[in-house]
Formats: sequence, structure tokens, C-alpha cells
Amino acid sequence: MIKVAINGYGTVGKRVADAVAAQKDMKVVGVSKTRPNAEAFVAKQRGYPLYIADLSKKPAFEKVGLSVAGSVEDMCKQADVVVDATPGDIGATNKPLYEKLGIRAIWQGGEDHEVAGFSFNSSCNYKDAIGRKFVRVVSCNTTGLCRIIHAIDQEYGVAHVHAIMVRRGSDPGEIKKGPIDAIVLDPVSVPSHHGPDVLTVLPRISITTMAMIVPTTMMHMHAIQITTKKDVARDRVIELIKTHPRMGLIKKSAGIKSTAELKEFAMDLGRPRSDLYENCIFEDSIYANGKELCFFQAIHQEADIVVENIDAIRAMMGAEKDAAKSIKMTNDALGFSPIQNNH
Amino acid sequence: MIKVAINGYGTVGKRVADAVAAQKDMKVVGVSKTRPNAEAFVAKQRGYPLYIADLSKKPAFEKVGLSVAGSVEDMCKQADVVVDATPGDIGATNKPLYEKLGIRAIWQGGEDHEVAGFSFNSSCNYKDAIGRKFVRVVSCNTTGLCRIIHAIDQEYGVAHVHAIMVRRGSDPGEIKKGPIDAIVLDPVSVPSHHGPDVLTVLPRISITTMAMIVPTTMMHMHAIQITTKKDVARDRVIELIKTHPRMGLIKKSAGIKSTAELKEFAMDLGRPRSDLYENCIFEDSIYANGKELCFFQAIHQEADIVVENIDAIRAMMGAEKDAAKSIKMTNDALGFSPIQNNH
Amino acid sequence: MIKVAINGYGTVGKRVADAVAAQKDMKVVGVSKTRPNAEAFVAKQRGYPLYIADLSKKPAFEKVGLSVAGSVEDMCKQADVVVDATPGDIGATNKPLYEKLGIRAIWQGGEDHEVAGFSFNSSCNYKDAIGRKFVRVVSCNTTGLCRIIHAIDQEYGVAHVHAIMVRRGSDPGEIKKGPIDAIVLDPVSVPSHHGPDVLTVLPRISITTMAMIVPTTMMHMHAIQITTKKDVARDRVIELIKTHPRMGLIKKSAGIKSTAELKEFAMDLGRPRSDLYENCIFEDSIYANGKELCFFQAIHQEADIVVENIDAIRAMMGAEKDAAKSIKMTNDALGFSPIQNNH
Amino acid sequence: MIKVAINGYGTVGKRVADAVAAQKDMKVVGVSKTRPNAEAFVAKQRGYPLYIADLSKKPAFEKVGLSVAGSVEDMCKQADVVVDATPGDIGATNKPLYEKLGIRAIWQGGEDHEVAGFSFNSSCNYKDAIGRKFVRVVSCNTTGLCRIIHAIDQEYGVAHVHAIMVRRGSDPGEIKKGPIDAIVLDPVSVPSHHGPDVLTVLPRISITTMAMIVPTTMMHMHAIQITTKKDVARDRVIELIKTHPRMGLIKKSAGIKSTAELKEFAMDLGRPRSDLYENCIFEDSIYANGKELCFFQAIHQEADIVVENIDAIRAMMGAEKDAAKSIKMTNDALGFSPIQNNH
Repeated sequence: MIKVAINGYGTVGKRVADAVAAQKDMKVVGVSKTRPNAEAFVAKQRGYPLYIADLSKKPAFEKVGLSVAGSVEDMCKQADVVVDATPGDIGATNKPLYEKLGIRAIWQGGEDHEVAGFSFNSSCNYKDAIGRKFVRVVSCNTTGLCRIIHAIDQEYGVAHVHAIMVRRGSDPGEIKKGPIDAIVLDPVSVPSHHGPDVLTVLPRISITTMAMIVPTTMMHMHAIQITTKKDVARDRVIELIKTHPRMGLIKKSAGIKSTAELKEFAMDLGRPRSDLYENCIFEDSIYANGKELCFFQAIHQEADIVVENIDAIRAMMGAEKDAAKSIKMTNDALGFSPIQNNH
Repeated sequence: MIKVAINGYGTVGKRVADAVAAQKDMKVVGVSKTRPNAEAFVAKQRGYPLYIADLSKKPAFEKVGLSVAGSVEDMCKQADVVVDATPGDIGATNKPLYEKLGIRAIWQGGEDHEVAGFSFNSSCNYKDAIGRKFVRVVSCNTTGLCRIIHAIDQEYGVAHVHAIMVRRGSDPGEIKKGPIDAIVLDPVSVPSHHGPDVLTVLPRISITTMAMIVPTTMMHMHAIQITTKKDVARDRVIELIKTHPRMGLIKKSAGIKSTAELKEFAMDLGRPRSDLYENCIFEDSIYANGKELCFFQAIHQEADIVVENIDAIRAMMGAEKDAAKSIKMTNDALGFSPIQNNH
Repeated sequence: MIKVAINGYGTVGKRVADAVAAQKDMKVVGVSKTRPNAEAFVAKQRGYPLYIADLSKKPAFEKVGLSVAGSVEDMCKQADVVVDATPGDIGATNKPLYEKLGIRAIWQGGEDHEVAGFSFNSSCNYKDAIGRKFVRVVSCNTTGLCRIIHAIDQEYGVAHVHAIMVRRGSDPGEIKKGPIDAIVLDPVSVPSHHGPDVLTVLPRISITTMAMIVPTTMMHMHAIQITTKKDVARDRVIELIKTHPRMGLIKKSAGIKSTAELKEFAMDLGRPRSDLYENCIFEDSIYANGKELCFFQAIHQEADIVVENIDAIRAMMGAEKDAAKSIKMTNDALGFSPIQNNH
Repeated sequence: MIKVAINGYGTVGKRVADAVAAQKDMKVVGVSKTRPNAEAFVAKQRGYPLYIADLSKKPAFEKVGLSVAGSVEDMCKQADVVVDATPGDIGATNKPLYEKLGIRAIWQGGEDHEVAGFSFNSSCNYKDAIGRKFVRVVSCNTTGLCRIIHAIDQEYGVAHVHAIMVRRGSDPGEIKKGPIDAIVLDPVSVPSHHGPDVLTVLPRISITTMAMIVPTTMMHMHAIQITTKKDVARDRVIELIKTHPRMGLIKKSAGIKSTAELKEFAMDLGRPRSDLYENCIFEDSIYANGKELCFFQAIHQEADIVVENIDAIRAMMGAEKDAAKSIKMTNDALGFSPIQNNH
């Protein structure tokens, strides 16, 4: 049993914790919170030992019926790997602690590549993560881009990618962030950081990205154009998607043409937290014309990186050397099968 | 086993179907759809026999792998009770069919009181539904109002209610309805229809309601002021809520001050479809000053009437004569306990 | 000519500046900005001398073609009155400067009553502002409440007010603030601060307020119930509104039932910045039943306080002793007539 | 004086009417409405004779104080040209009337190209419209695409365009249309209709378009990648934009990075209805790398076609043979100068 600590029990951390708990070869040794709130009660309901960053706040937790097992350092000492799911830019400040304790650590895409020195995607570079001490799982958008670009590159060779990311403004449970009625260029300048970030996983790809933020909480939407080296066959692209363990095809028969309907479908299917771990590629949008391939893919910002974290743990621990086997173990333990298998 | 058919497998129908399937004394004999879409695949996943209104569309269903068991009339013939969850104003047009087949029927709050001649709320008038052929379960907003007004009326006597309903513009899975950036008075005139609708369940209450629509999908919010006949004690009101099987108290310790955070909590707790069957009353908002009682309650538009439908089935069939027992059976079968028990 | 400086040329400041410039007895001696941006170019277009808080930033302004006339202190020295329209809680920190210079100052409703020691509304307490050194113009919501409550109180006597404020999440030009999809109780506790704030202008009123925030940028909406001391006649209430210089009646003939349609109408009428200086009361919503009076009023958060600032200037300078005359001068100079006169 | 009738006084019609009225060589002979509402009162305020489609509704107009000058046919008889600004797909049904009366007619982009047989853009094919009986002014998105693509094509030659259109869900004054919280692919299939529509004006361009709808009312946003035939120089592209009479450059100094801030700036500048007639291209987003040119442009859906309608009128009447002169006349009469001249 690989012992895993989750530092930061928020949007990502709570999902990774449940995914770890579902694996046969892993267990959650603890999760951390900075203040008592609804999520802390969820951790209690799940039976995850609760640790806190600042022990002076222990009475505040206990006052509302939440037991505190110790400090974050105490938690890390129990673990083989810590998944750092603290907010962006906080994660890096935890590195000295992990180094001091000699513990393996995974950071999320909100941190710079340099924090871990290695950026991970299960489908692209699993083998290179084996035995590593520090790994960074790239962001939800970069994960979604890497999966499909790598698959197309292997089949047809990618000459250039032009990807537009229309991003959600906040997660569903957030209430402070906007915009309420605007399209925000984030950043205004081109290319956005997403292109260079893809290169941390797939260094030889040529890519230009543009990004904006819109008033929705549901998912990101990518409008992608790939110029390939060989002519593209639409049917073959569909087959590549259908046979990929982390890509899903939204078929016309589902009548889905939006992120909202897609999330509703995931909810109805009983997915935990309505999570979509896979790239959701709209079959009807796949357009192949000579060496031009276009399509839309929806990316669930809270979920696609969850399964990648699990594989990263397994690779770092050397518990499984084969990417496909780890991916299958992860998916099976979650009862996850890409969405085309449900309609 | 009470055999239940669900006519209209949409936002409400799919929830009622799952709630029926969870009861020990009930089973789903079929659900109906008008066209093949994502929800039809969900019905298939759940194993509910699929019936269709227009048999000429059978090939369209079969083409995408959906078996059709027969017509809506065929479905009703299998059932003891049909829950009509078709869109507002369509339900009434189905009455001749139900009458012809001599089947018991439940309509939702989108239909007029006169369709069934009896409007139902488990906590208010369960006994009066026993043995009835036709019952209307009042709308989500009316359900939420009836529960709390009845409880306060029994304790303190209600002189007058002033209730403002701030309603969600569309459900999360809908994409056509707005508004996007507006507060819409719906209706402009005062009182809105909600006040008179409360009277179909609680005929002696004096109430003025005002209603508007805002650009959110999550839940409705009620801002309520009740003028009572006796002085109100805040602690007693809290106790009334805590001990009610269909009312929940959002305690300060959860740190929740919005519909979005509330839905996130329900999701994290593993509620099916993140559903909140209970009135969600914010403890911190409860304000008692002499004979004035004010508070906020959030109402999950897709969910609070689901449990009421189940109780209505049981009452109509005469399967359980005691409201409290039916409510407990319904809640227990769903693993449902009001939200104050989770934090 | 009364010389007016505007400290803080943002959402409120830019409107007050234009309103001052439109008056025959006033002129703008300067406006201040903290950084060069679009609004600074607007000030230049209008010909308002531009002053800055931090003179070390002068080169940043000049680099983009914006002349800087001096510091905020330099600006204040040119003025008889300074209108402080800096962001909430900043205004109070400017008081020592105004005191040092011995200049009259007006603060906005984002500051506490105590900063000025006197809270102002043209229709309620103009006379009490005559000759004052420091005045606070109450917030947009409090202004809207005071106007109507005072008018009803004078006619019928107000026993109690129950007011629910459904507030916009951000102004149209803001992009950082949410919520995107939530109704946020702000605050959760009852009463909200609006009730006590009304008392700073109308100290003898009994009022309970509840407030929430929704995802819109357009206007606030108030759902108000007033319990009066005498029976209310609906027609008389309509007459009171129609004859009030700062209240507008939205008649049924306009077909307007939302904030969005109302702002569109204001835009089409050619109102500067589509501003609605008046309470916008929906005629169809006015409901009178014995001693109960209910109605909806929309309040343009950026605008209703603009005209109040102008009157406050005139009162403080002792330039006009009669409230009605000042209000008429202000309205006429802006070409403003309440909206019922346009349909 | 060219006599112009506006059939359909709504979002587009009311803007075209004011733009016509501002021209020295044109006058508004009438506008039409189907029902009395706020916009009808605006027409009255402006002094435009009001005609109605269905004369039996005349009493409904007169009852609220709106004089009716006659029928739509009566209106057309007064005119040299009718601008049809009725809702999409209605316009085509008016063609027989215009043919019967032998009147020149302009349709908007909601109609098919075939209705007029000629699709117009001032900057691309003004000369071909001279003397025409029927002209279609292409949609706001197509107008925005044609302007920039044509300019780049003339300078560098366009090999291929990949354009993503992120469209507003409804106009600010609309309240029924959503989505509230979703990104909707509209259509799901690639290419969207916008690419083929560009070809009605610029038949030799190779273009792939993808389109989606998001919950905002402000403006559309285009993310554009153009592959050119010759290497692109960024400074030259900026110069092309700056010197184009219908393209505007949003410079970094304005600090604007969203549609909301852009509309606020237009409002502050005193533009009528805050209208942006020009493509709003973000200087910071202009990215040139060899033969790849990328940039963001915001398109005000209610406005950019207004000025095109005016030029179309002049061309059809043969009143001015030179495109540049007509464009300058139109712009000057509106006091319009592209936005880079304001910051």
C-alpha cells in the first residue's frame, strides 16, 4: 500500500483523495486544511485524518467537532508521497519541507515547471517519471492539449497547432471571481502561457495558443486546429479517440452541444462529483481537410488532472512500470470508462 | 410492490424514477421519452424500460441502440400509479388517458390545482391524500413555503407572511433560457402566483408573495418575513427546523453563504445528483424580534418535490396511513438526512 | 461659480464631474487618478485638469500623452468643495488632508456616517446640510430607500418597512468580481446594514432589511413591503411617485419588466451614460391592501447618488436654501426628467 | 435628400434610423413597429413618423399616446430606399412588397445571400453595389471578418484563415435568451456558416470558422489566425489598422483587456448608445511570426453594420461613387473616429 498525504483539501485535493482511496494499492494517510469549513466536514465524513497547517487553530476546529490529527509536517511523516494541492504559488513554498523530510512530492500545474523539474502526463511521458522524487502534473488545459496532440502527432505528425482556450471564470463553488458579463482576454498577448507549457511535456511540438475567460463555471472549451504532416482521415481520428483511455467522444446521438448538457450527462451517469476525467471531443466537430484537422474539446477543469495524479504516484513509487497498465488500474478502480461507452 | 410509471423522463422524472427505485415497497415499471437523447441513455443505464409517446419514432431510438418497450399507454397499463413529469401544461392533456385506463396519477406544480383537485405536501396534508385517485404535488417554491409556514403556524400562529422569491433562470443543464444579465420581475404584478398557490395546501394562511428571476442555475432563494400571533423565540425556531424531517439548517460552522457553496457541499457529501431535498435555512439569518420572524432559505428547484412525490404515491395507494412513517421510509431509502447532521 | 474638485475619477467620480460641469453655478477645477488608464483619457477628452495622488507616477502619465496638473493637494487648493469618490474606506483616510486645507468635503456611502457626522439625502434633509463642512451622501441603495420611505411616511405614516435588496454583483465595466452562477447572501445575517443606514437620514423609521448579491451588472432591485399607519390608496401612491422629482414610474405601456430593458430604454432616450438618477418604480407592482403597501423598485447603482452630490454641494455652500429649487436646478441642468415623462 | 424608411425599429433599426438622420444627404421618412413598447416611445421622442404592420393594432398604439402615420406599405411609398431590419427570416417575406412598389431594399445578415443576390461590405465591394436595387449587408461577424481579412489580403495575400468566434448569447436588452452558465457550440459542426458567408463578399478567400456562444451580452470576440503568402511585419499590420476608417486599435495604454471595459470606454467617450462601429483589435494581441498572424478583435454585434447600411444606401442610390468618400461622409456625420484616436 502506497501511503499518500494530500496537502490542501480543496477543489483538486478532495478529488485526488477520493481517487487515491479508491485504488487497491494506495491509501490516504491524511489531508490538510487551513481553516474549518464545509470541506473539513467532508473529510471527516470520508474518514480522512485531518491535519492543519497552523496548530494554533486547533481549538477552532475542535470547537465545531472536527478532530485534528496533527500538523502538516506530522502528516507528511506518515506518507510515501505527498500530493500538494495547495493554491497556485503556495505549493513551491512547501518544497523545503518535503526536501527536509525526504518525501516524494507531486505539484499541480499552478506551479512552475522548475519546482519539480519534470512535468507529467500519463499518456505522454509516464516512463520518464519512474522513480522520480519530484513531479509536476501539468494543468487541466495542458493535460487536455497534450493527450490529443500526442495522439495525433504519433499518427500523422504535427506541423503546427493553433489552439484557442475559452476558459471558465470560476469553479462552481466559488463566488468571488468573475467576470459576470464580459469576455476577458487572459492574457491579451499571444501566445498565452499554455503553448509553452505544452512544451514541458512535448518539447518538439510547434504550437500557438490564445486564451480568454468567460462567465461560466462548468468547463473550459478548446477550439483546436492542427496542421499535420500527412493527410488526415476523419474516421481514423475518431478511432484514435475511441481507443484512448483518457479521451471521450461525444456522439451526435446524445444531442449534447454544450458544457452544461455534458456535465448534466456526467451527473446522470452517476460519475462521482459529475467528474469528467477525459477530454470530451465532439464527434460532429471533427473536421479533416487534407492536412487540416479541427475539432472542439471540452475540458473539466476540476477533474482531468485527478487521474494523472494517481498515475504519477504509481510511476514515482516504481509500483508499475507500464503506463497503459497504470492507466487501466486507475480507471478501473474509479469505475471510469470514457463517455462514448455510455451512449 | 407498488408499480410506478414515470411519464416524462426529464429533470424531475429522472429524479423521481431513481427515488422510486430506491424504495423497498415500490418499483419502476417504465419511463417515457419523446426523443432519443442523453437522458434516454441514462434510462437504459439504469435498466428502466423505455416507452415512447409516438411509436413512429421507434426506429430513431433503435438506430442508436435504445430498445423501446412500447407506447406510453402500454406503460401506464403496467402501473398502479403514474407520475406525470411532463413539461408544464402538457400534463393536463394526459388526464383523459389516465382516466380511460383508470390509473392513479400524480401531477407536478406546473399544472393547475384543478387538474387533480387536490394539492399535496407531505408535512401538511398527507392524510387527506390517502386513497385519492389524482394528486398534484405543488411546485418546488410552494413546497418550500408550505413546510416552514406550516411549522411556524403550528407553533406560533401565522398572522401574515411576506415572501420574496429570487428564482434561478434555468436549470443547470438548460442552455436556451436566460436572462444572461438582468433581474426580471416575473411577474411584475404583486402578489405573484406563489401566494395563492400556498393556499391550495394551507387555505387559512394570509400571504403576499413577490417573485423575480436572476441569472443563476443553482437554486431559488427565499427572503421571508413572517408576522406571528405570539412572540417568537429564535432558539425554538431553530429547534423546529432541526427536528423537521424535510428542513435543514445551514450552520455558521460550514462557512456557507451562497447557493453555489451549498450545492458544492451537497455534491461533496455524495448526495445523488447533489440533490437537496430539504429547505436549506441559514441559521445566521434567523432573526426574531417580537412577532417578526425573518430568514433566508434556499430551495433546490430540481429536488425538494422528489421526496414529496414518493410520499404521495404511498398515500394514494393507502400503503401507509401515517405521514411521519412514510416520510421516514422515503428519507431512509434515499439515505437522506437533513444537512445539519453533516456538519 | 462654485469650484469643485473630484478626488477619484472612477465609476462615481466621472459621473459627478460631468454633472458638476453641466451646472450653471459650478465648475470642475480638477479630477484625480492614481494610474493612467482609459478613464484618464476620458478626463482629457472632457478637458478636466488631471491631478494624481503620487507625483512619482507623473512620467507614466506623460509617456502616454496625459498632462498632469499637479498633486491631489494642489487640486484641493483650487477648490471650494472636494467630492471624495475614492473607493470605500479610502475616503476616510483623506479627511486629515481636507481638514488641513480647511476645504469642504463630501464622502460617498462606502464611508461610515461618522466620517462626516452627517448623512444626506436631497429629498429628506437638505436644509440640515446648509453650511456644513463635511457631508456624506448615502449609498445608492440607502438613497433609493430614503426617497420612497420618506414620501410614504409623510403621507401615511410608516409603521414598519421590510425591504429586500437584490444587488448587482459588479458594475458593467468591472471584470474581477463575481459571482458567476450563485445567489450570495451578503450578509447572511438579518438585518443587513442597509436598515441602520437608512436611520442615519430618517432616524425614526422602523425597518428590517435583507440583502443578497446576484450575477448581474445592471441595477439593484428592491422588493419592498411597507406597513403604514393609515390605509393606503394605490392611486395616491402613484401620484406621489409621479410628482416626486427623483422618482420615476415605469408604466405598463412601456412593456418593461426587467433591469435590462430599463437600461436599454434609458440608453435609447439618450440619457448620458444611460444613467437613471431616479428610483424606478414599477407601476404594475404597486399593491395596496389596507395598511400593506408592496412594490418593486430598480436602483441604478452608478447613478442615483450623482444628483444628490450636486445638491449637497449647493447646500454646503449655502448657494441655495430651498431643497426643491436646488433639485430643480440640478435636474434641469442635466436635462433630466423622471422616466414617466418619456412614455 | 435620400428618403429612407426603416422597416423594423428594434436593435438594428433604431441605430440605423439615428445614423440616417445624422447624414446631410438623407432623411428618415418613417419607422415601423409591430406593437407599442418602449422603443415606440423612443421613435416618438426622435420625431420619426411611426408606421405599423397591422393597422388593426392602431387603437393599441393610440391608447398610449402614440400616433400612427399609416401602414408599412404607406411608409415604403414615401421612401427611395427601405432598410429592412426585421428579425431574421422575416425580411425575406417582405421582398414581394418591395418588388411590387419598385422600391430599393437593404436586408441584414440574418437573411440569406440569395434574397438580395448581392452581399455588401463598404471596404470590400462598395463599387459593385452602385445602382443596385437589392443589397444585403452581411452580419456583424462577417462584416468584422471581411474588413480585416481584405486588408491583410491586399497587403500580404491570405493563404488561409482560421477564425474562432466567441459570440454573445443575447443583446443587453434581451431577457429570454441564454445560456446562463454554459459554453454552447453553435453549431457543433465545423466549419460554422461564417466562413461560407465571408465568401459572399470575398469569394477567393480560404477560411475555416468555428463558433460558440457564451453567457455575455456585450460583444463578440474573434480569435483569428491568418496564414499569409508573404512574411508579415507586425508594425505594418498595426499601421494598416490605424489607417483603416472602420478598424480601431486598442492600445496597451488604455489598460483594456475585456469587452466590458471596452464598452465602458465607448460609453465614457459619449458614443451614441456606446456603439463601437469599428473592429476593435487589441494591439497587444497582434502576433506575427513568419507567415502566421494572430490577433483578437472584439465586434460590437449591434453596431458595426450600422455604418455599412448607410454606405449601402449611398451606393445603391448612386449618390457617391467612391467608397472612401462615402465612408468618410458616414463617419463624419456620426462624429465617429476609430478608437485609437481617443487614447
